[in-house]
Amino acid sequence: MAKAIHSMIRVLDEARSVEFYQKAFGLKIADRLDFDSFTLIYLSNGETGFELELTVNKDRTTAYDLGDGYGHLAFSVEDVNSEHARLTALGLEPRKLVDFAPAGTVIARFFFIADPDGYQIEVLQRAGRYL
Amino acid sequence: MAKAIHSMIRVLDEARSVEFYQKAFGLKIADRLDFDSFTLIYLSNGETGFELELTVNKDRTTAYDLGDGYGHLAFSVEDVNSEHARLTALGLEPRKLVDFAPAGTVIARFFFIADPDGYQIEVLQRAGRYL
Repeated sequence: MAKAIHSMIRVLDEARSVEFYQKAFGLKIADRLDFDSFTLIYLSNGETGFELELTVNKDRTTAYDLGDGYGHLAFSVEDVNSEHARLTALGLEPRKLVDFAPAGTVIARFFFIADPDGYQIEVLQRAGRYL
Repeated sequence: MAKAIHSMIRVLDEARSVEFYQKAFGLKIADRLDFDSFTLIYLSNGETGFELELTVNKDRTTAYDLGDGYGHLAFSVEDVNSEHARLTALGLEPRKLVDFAPAGTVIARFFFIADPDGYQIEVLQRAGRYL
């Protein structure tokens, strides 16, 4: 059966992105494949085999057009309040914590944070269906 | 530790997308949250807990701008040749099979296929680092 194994985004600055994902989510370089015109960097941590693949196109100098179709990658964390505080202290400027309760009951507690290229990432309290 | 749990894309037509992901990758609806202005559909299969989240904004009628930043979601499969043949027979028009061998050795055997909104999906032979 097909297994979801990674999500790929194009980024401008390898070092900047690797540092962000390491600090924010504990992702480390699982593999790095360097070619003439581009580099692929696979990031993961011990929580799951699912990887974030960064593509760095070496001749690209202008910001990528993020469009309005792709939404976000989501991470669950054990304590979303302390993660929010930790990322704030690191100067990574997470957006405000939100309790999503459209019908009165909290379905999700989360915040968003942007990576260095502007991709949105959702950080959710590990609960309910967000395990 | 932060755990990658889903990736979200915005799609125009819920039924069309659900059918595609079911036929192409065996993903089924794990949850469906319907609100006034939008619907969230979580898709997964038994291979991994990682989910694809579809967002349907009910007032959206024009195609989403996919930009050039987000790349793709990737799936590994046990036999990429037979999957390519199966998806071709279903009329889903996968692109051609590629052996990626930049230095002479095959690193990956894969093809791309577009979902109904034009998002690219990479389907890789389960081997090497693509497990």
